[in-house]
Amino acid sequence: MIGGSQDAFIGAVHRKAANLDGQIELVCGAFSSNPEKSKATGASLFLDPKRVYGSYEEMIRKEKALPADQRMDFVSIVTPNHVHFGPAKMALENGFHVIIDKPMCFDLKEAKALHKLVEKTGLVFGLTHTYTGYPLVKEAREMIKKGKLGKIRKVFVEYPQGWLSTFLEATGSKQATWRTDPSKSGAGGAIGDIGTHAANLAEYITASPITEICAQLNIVVKGRKLDDDSSMLLRFENGASGILMATQVAAGEENNLNIRVYGEKGGLSWRQEEPNTLEIKWLDKPKEVLRAGWGYLGDVAKQNTRVPSGHPEGYLEAFANLYRNFANAVADHKPGKKIDPAKYDFPDVADGVRGMAFVETVVKSSASNQKWTKLKI
Amino acid sequence: MIGGSQDAFIGAVHRKAANLDGQIELVCGAFSSNPEKSKATGASLFLDPKRVYGSYEEMIRKEKALPADQRMDFVSIVTPNHVHFGPAKMALENGFHVIIDKPMCFDLKEAKALHKLVEKTGLVFGLTHTYTGYPLVKEAREMIKKGKLGKIRKVFVEYPQGWLSTFLEATGSKQATWRTDPSKSGAGGAIGDIGTHAANLAEYITASPITEICAQLNIVVKGRKLDDDSSMLLRFENGASGILMATQVAAGEENNLNIRVYGEKGGLSWRQEEPNTLEIKWLDKPKEVLRAGWGYLGDVAKQNTRVPSGHPEGYLEAFANLYRNFANAVADHKPGKKIDPAKYDFPDVADGVRGMAFVETVVKSSASNQKWTKLKI
Amino acid sequence: MIGGSQDAFIGAVHRKAANLDGQIELVCGAFSSNPEKSKATGASLFLDPKRVYGSYEEMIRKEKALPADQRMDFVSIVTPNHVHFGPAKMALENGFHVIIDKPMCFDLKEAKALHKLVEKTGLVFGLTHTYTGYPLVKEAREMIKKGKLGKIRKVFVEYPQGWLSTFLEATGSKQATWRTDPSKSGAGGAIGDIGTHAANLAEYITASPITEICAQLNIVVKGRKLDDDSSMLLRFENGASGILMATQVAAGEENNLNIRVYGEKGGLSWRQEEPNTLEIKWLDKPKEVLRAGWGYLGDVAKQNTRVPSGHPEGYLEAFANLYRNFANAVADHKPGKKIDPAKYDFPDVADGVRGMAFVETVVKSSASNQKWTKLKI
Amino acid sequence: MIGGSQDAFIGAVHRKAANLDGQIELVCGAFSSNPEKSKATGASLFLDPKRVYGSYEEMIRKEKALPADQRMDFVSIVTPNHVHFGPAKMALENGFHVIIDKPMCFDLKEAKALHKLVEKTGLVFGLTHTYTGYPLVKEAREMIKKGKLGKIRKVFVEYPQGWLSTFLEATGSKQATWRTDPSKSGAGGAIGDIGTHAANLAEYITASPITEICAQLNIVVKGRKLDDDSSMLLRFENGASGILMATQVAAGEENNLNIRVYGEKGGLSWRQEEPNTLEIKWLDKPKEVLRAGWGYLGDVAKQNTRVPSGHPEGYLEAFANLYRNFANAVADHKPGKKIDPAKYDFPDVADGVRGMAFVETVVKSSASNQKWTKLKI
Repeated sequence: MIGGSQDAFIGAVHRKAANLDGQIELVCGAFSSNPEKSKATGASLFLDPKRVYGSYEEMIRKEKALPADQRMDFVSIVTPNHVHFGPAKMALENGFHVIIDKPMCFDLKEAKALHKLVEKTGLVFGLTHTYTGYPLVKEAREMIKKGKLGKIRKVFVEYPQGWLSTFLEATGSKQATWRTDPSKSGAGGAIGDIGTHAANLAEYITASPITEICAQLNIVVKGRKLDDDSSMLLRFENGASGILMATQVAAGEENNLNIRVYGEKGGLSWRQEEPNTLEIKWLDKPKEVLRAGWGYLGDVAKQNTRVPSGHPEGYLEAFANLYRNFANAVADHKPGKKIDPAKYDFPDVADGVRGMAFVETVVKSSASNQKWTKLKI
Repeated sequence: MIGGSQDAFIGAVHRKAANLDGQIELVCGAFSSNPEKSKATGASLFLDPKRVYGSYEEMIRKEKALPADQRMDFVSIVTPNHVHFGPAKMALENGFHVIIDKPMCFDLKEAKALHKLVEKTGLVFGLTHTYTGYPLVKEAREMIKKGKLGKIRKVFVEYPQGWLSTFLEATGSKQATWRTDPSKSGAGGAIGDIGTHAANLAEYITASPITEICAQLNIVVKGRKLDDDSSMLLRFENGASGILMATQVAAGEENNLNIRVYGEKGGLSWRQEEPNTLEIKWLDKPKEVLRAGWGYLGDVAKQNTRVPSGHPEGYLEAFANLYRNFANAVADHKPGKKIDPAKYDFPDVADGVRGMAFVETVVKSSASNQKWTKLKI
Repeated sequence: MIGGSQDAFIGAVHRKAANLDGQIELVCGAFSSNPEKSKATGASLFLDPKRVYGSYEEMIRKEKALPADQRMDFVSIVTPNHVHFGPAKMALENGFHVIIDKPMCFDLKEAKALHKLVEKTGLVFGLTHTYTGYPLVKEAREMIKKGKLGKIRKVFVEYPQGWLSTFLEATGSKQATWRTDPSKSGAGGAIGDIGTHAANLAEYITASPITEICAQLNIVVKGRKLDDDSSMLLRFENGASGILMATQVAAGEENNLNIRVYGEKGGLSWRQEEPNTLEIKWLDKPKEVLRAGWGYLGDVAKQNTRVPSGHPEGYLEAFANLYRNFANAVADHKPGKKIDPAKYDFPDVADGVRGMAFVETVVKSSASNQKWTKLKI
Repeated sequence: MIGGSQDAFIGAVHRKAANLDGQIELVCGAFSSNPEKSKATGASLFLDPKRVYGSYEEMIRKEKALPADQRMDFVSIVTPNHVHFGPAKMALENGFHVIIDKPMCFDLKEAKALHKLVEKTGLVFGLTHTYTGYPLVKEAREMIKKGKLGKIRKVFVEYPQGWLSTFLEATGSKQATWRTDPSKSGAGGAIGDIGTHAANLAEYITASPITEICAQLNIVVKGRKLDDDSSMLLRFENGASGILMATQVAAGEENNLNIRVYGEKGGLSWRQEEPNTLEIKWLDKPKEVLRAGWGYLGDVAKQNTRVPSGHPEGYLEAFANLYRNFANAVADHKPGKKIDPAKYDFPDVADGVRGMAFVETVVKSSASNQKWTKLKI
C-alpha cells in the first residue's frame, strides 16, 4: 500500500475492504512520505518492519528484488490525487498490478499516459469507484441492459455532501486541505472528488456515455480555491438527457449520492445511504422495492452479496466487492494475456480516463458562455 | 364557476376545496360551452336551474343584473388556458372578484393586461398555485425569512409526473389533449402545466425571484407538439443557484413535486406527496422532522391547518386554504381600497405574470445556444 | 347536529367531512347544552337562527313538526360518550336516521338497546369509525377477501398516541377531561377512545371477528382515573393470532394507527399517517407499494378516492367517505325496507355493539389472572 | 473455529467479522464433524493443513500442546445449539477464551454450568448477540441511561422474519432443519433463534431486566415440531411494560428486528434493516433523526463506527464490533484477573444465561393458563 498512514481516511477503508473476505493480505507499505509515520503505521498493522518502507520508490524497488513468490502481488495507491500518477507508473513499469483511488490522476494527460502503459504492460488495473460495487447498482445496470425499463429517457444523478459548508481548510483539516488545493487536487474540487463518482455511476448504470455537458461550477464558500458546488445538464449517447449535481456545501447532507433513471416503461431509484433497496416505479403497476439478498435478483447482484436479505451490507462491503473482483482478475492474470475488466466487473483505467475527461469538460463548460460542450477523450 | 363540467378534473377540485369550510357556497355556473352539458352539471350540483348559464358572458351579464345581495360574490375560472383571459377580463370589468386556475393566461401579454385591470379595478384576484397552500410550505418560507438556515445557497425543485409517458392525446384523453395543444395551452407544455408550479414554489419558499435561466426543453414522446420534459439551471436574485426539473414523462411518477433548499446552516426538504412532513438537516445537529399540527410551528402554518397532528391533510385542504384566504380577502374588500394579497396569503395576479414570464423565458432559453437568459417582465 | 360547539374538536371535523362533496347541507343544530353557546355556534355556521336549538330534545321535537320536505334528513351526534344513547334513541324513535361518533355508547347494554331500536325502526344508522373510510384500507380488505395473501396467520394492530403523556386533565383541557372521566367516557379510557378504532380496523380488514383477548390495561400517568395504555394478545375466528396495542402515553406519537396482516403468501402494512400507501411484502417476489388513485386498484378503493394519484387525500376525505356512503344509504332508504350497510360500505350499529363488547371484554380480561377471556356479545 | 464449514451460514459471518479490522487472524479450525469437509474448508481459507482438525476435541488438545506463543488465543464456536456446551466447556477447561454464537446452550442447566466455569477459570467469554454491536443501539442505551427520555414506560420489540413461512425443513435446507429440530435446537424454535436476540436487545437498551412474561407460542406451519411464531406481554424491573413478538412466518419479512422505547419525555425507535438511523420523537419538539458517524453522538457509538456518516455500515460491521471488543478483552486479559465484559462492551456468559432462562420461561408461560410467569434464573 502506498499512502494511508494512521491519520488518513481512505487508506484504512481500503485495508478493511481488502481484509473482509480473507483472500487478500497486506504484506508491505509505504504509508507516508514521512518515514517515521510510515513505520508507526506499519507497526500498528502488525507488518514485518522490513517491509515497511520510507517511500514508494523504495518499496517498489525492494519488493521487486524479492523472490517472485514472496513479493507483493499488487499495489494499492491511496495518496492524494497529485501522487497517483508517479507510483502507478512506476508500479506498472516494474510489473505490479495496481488498484488506485479515484479520481485516477491529476489531469487528463496523466490519465491517458497511464492508459497507454496499462495497454502496453497488460497488467490488471483497478480504480475504486466504490459505488458501483453495490449489488443493487449492479442489478439496476442489468435491468436496463435487459430493456426492462424500455429506452432510457432521463437520468438524474446527485451527489450532495455538506462537510465543506464552512471554510474547513482554515482549520487544518487534512481531508479538506488537499482536496481544496489546486496543486494537489487538480482542476476540479467537488467535481473531481465526488462529481466523478456521480458521472461514473450514471454511465455504469445506463451503460451509455455522457457526450455533452452544460455546467455551472461555483465556489460558494468565500476564500476557497476550487469549486465546492456544481450543477449541470447532460446528454447521453443513447439519446437520454440528464441532470448531474455534485456539491459539498449542501449543509446537513452526509454522503447522499443517488440516482434516478426513467425509461419508457418505468423508472428506477437508488440511494447510497440506504444501498440495499432499489425502487422501481412502473407506468401501470405498483411500485416494486427490490432488496439485496433475494432470489429474484440477477446473478451479478448475487455474486456481490455476502449475507442474507435483511442483514444490511454497506460501504465497506461495496468496497470489498471491488477488491475481490480485482483480486480475482489478478489471480487469473497470465503474463502476456490482457484481462477483460468487464468480465471481472471492476472499474479500470478506461473509467479513469473518462473521469479525468469529465473533470476537464466540466471546467471548460463552466467557463464558457456557450450552452453545450462536448465530452471528448 | 366558469368551466368545470362533469367530465373535467380541476373544476370538481375547486368545488370541493371551496365547500370544505362551509363558508363558500356555489350559487351559479357556466360549466361548459355546451349549454346542455352546463345544465346537466348544474343539476348534479343542486343549483337553481335559473342560475346555470350557457356561456360565461351570459352568466356575468345576468348575475350583474341581480340585486347586489343576491348576485354571486366572485367568479372561479377553471377552463383550459386559452379561455382564461376572456372571462377574467369580463368578470373584472363587471365588478366581480376572480379566482382562476394556473397558468394564469395563454401568454405574457394577456397576463400583463390582466395585471393592469386588477390594478385599475382594485378587485381581489386569486391564482390557484395549490402547493403554496400547504402549511409546511408556509413554515419553510417563514423559517427562511427568519434566517434559520442562514443565507440561501442552493435550490433544487423538481416536478416529475409520468402520466404523459405515452402518446395519450391519441386516445382521446381530454386532460392530455388540450394540455399538449399549443392553441389551447400556449407556448409551454409541461413547463406551463407544472413547471410554473415548481418555479412559483421555489420563489414562494425562498422569497427570492428567479433572475436567469439556462433551459433545455424536450419533446420526448414522438408526435407530441409541446414540451413534455424540461431541465434547467437557475439563478436567484439572492445569489443562490438552483436546478428546476419538470417532466411529464418520468414513467411511474405520480405528482412528485418536491423542493430542497440549502443555506449556510442547514437545508430543508419538502415533498408534496407526503406534505405534512418538513425535514430540516442541520450542519451540526440531528436532522429534525417537523410535522403539521404541532405547537412548535409558526402562526402561518397553524392558520392553515384544520386537524391535529397525525390526522393527515392533503391536496384538497391545501386548495381549500387558498380559497379560504381568498374568500377572507373578498369578505374584507371595500370598493376603492386595494387588498394586499400578501396579508391574506394567497397567490395573485403578480404571481400569474411571473408564471407567464417564466414560460416565455424558458422557451426562449431552450431555443438559444447561449447559456443564460434573463427572466424579465 | 347534536354537540359540536365552537370549542369542540370532532364536531367541526364532522361538518367539514359532510360539506366536502357538496351533497350534504347542515340545516339545524343543538350544539351545546348551553343555549347561548349553541346559538353562537349556529350563527358562526350561517344557520337560520330558528333552527338553532337549546337542547337535542327541542331539536328533534321541532324538526319533526316541520313539513317532511323541510325538516332535517338525519342527525349527527358528536357529543361525549355519555350523551350518545339519549339523543340517538330519541332520534330513531322520531323517525330520523342517525350518524354517531364512536364509541357508540356508554356501555354494552346501551349498545344492545340501540341495536334493537335500529332493527325495529329500519332506519339508517352510521358510526364514524373514520379509518375504514380510507381507500387503501378498503383495498387491503378486498385483497384479503380475494385470498391474495392466502390464509391469514398474524395480525398486528397498533394505535399509539402521545397526547396524554402528562396529567393533561389537570390543565382544564376539555378533550382530556371528559375522556379520562369514567362518568363520561365509560369503563374504557384509551381502550374506548382509540382501542375500539384499532379493533374495528383489524376486524374490517381481515373480515374476521376477534374471539378471545388476553389484555393488560395500565394507568401510566399518576392520578388518572381510566386506562391510558393497553397491550393485548388476540385470537381471531379465522384462526389467526394477533397483538393489539393502544396507548395515549407513547410520548412523541401523533395518531399513529397502523396495521400489519400476514398470510401464507405475503403480508400487508398500512399506516394512517401516510394513508395513501399500502405495502405488500411477498414471500418470493419484490415488495409492492400500492398507491391511492391508480388504475390497478379495485373498484371499492376507486369509489372512495376523489383526486388522481399523487394528490394526497387525508383524514377529512376518509371521514367524508363515511358521510357520503351513509348519505347514499339515506337517499336510497325507503320506509319499511332495511338498508344493508355492507352494500353502502359504512360502519353501523352492529360495529358499535362489537366495539362496546370489546371494551368490556378488555376491562374484564385485564382484571383477571386467567390468560384468555372470550369476547361475547 | 469450531463449526462453520463451507455450507454453513454463520461461520462465514464470524470469519468476515473477525477479519475486518485486521487484528484477528484465523489460525486453525475444526470446521465439521466430517473430517473431509473440515479439511476442504480449511484449504479454502488458506490455513496450514496441520492446523485443520477433524474434531473439536482434537483441535483443543493439539493446540494446547503447541508452545504458548504459537497456539490459538481463543475459540469461536459456530455450531448448532446442541454442540455449544461441549466445546465451550472443553475450551475453557483447557485455558482458551471462548466466543460463541447464540443462543448460548441447549438449555438453562448447561448455561448455568458454563457460567460457573467462566467464573472459575476467569477466562474471557463472549456471546454474539450481534445486534447490540450497532453504534446506534449503543447510543440508544446511553440516552436512556442518562435519562434523556425520562422514566421508561413502554417497550415494543419485534423480530419478524418470513423465511420459515413454508415447510422448508422438508426440502433439506440445512438452516431450517436443525433449527426446527428439538434435539438440536432445544426447547425453543423461533423463540430461541431470534426471540433471544429481541429480549437481549430490549434489556441492553433499557438496562432493565424482563421480570414477567405472558406468552403465546404457536406452530403455524403444519408438521413443524417447534414454535415458529410467538407473541408476549412483558414486565420489566424498572416498572415498564412491553410487548415482544418474534416470528419466522411473517411472509415477506427479511430480518426486521426493531425496537421502540417510550419514556416520560419521548420515545426512540431503531430498526436493524436501516441501522444507521435512530429516531427520537419528543413530547414537545420536532422529531430528531440521529445518524451514525456524527459528532453529536456519544463516545460509545463513536468507538463502534469505522467510516464517516453517510457511508453505511451494516451487519458485518456490527458483528465485527463484538469481535473487536472481545479481542480487546482477550488482549488485556491477565491470568487470575477476571475481565469486566461491561467495560469492553460485549455480551457475555451472563447474557447467555438470561437468554436460556428467557426461552424456558416463555415455553412455560405458553403452556400455562395463568396470565403471568416470572422469569427467574
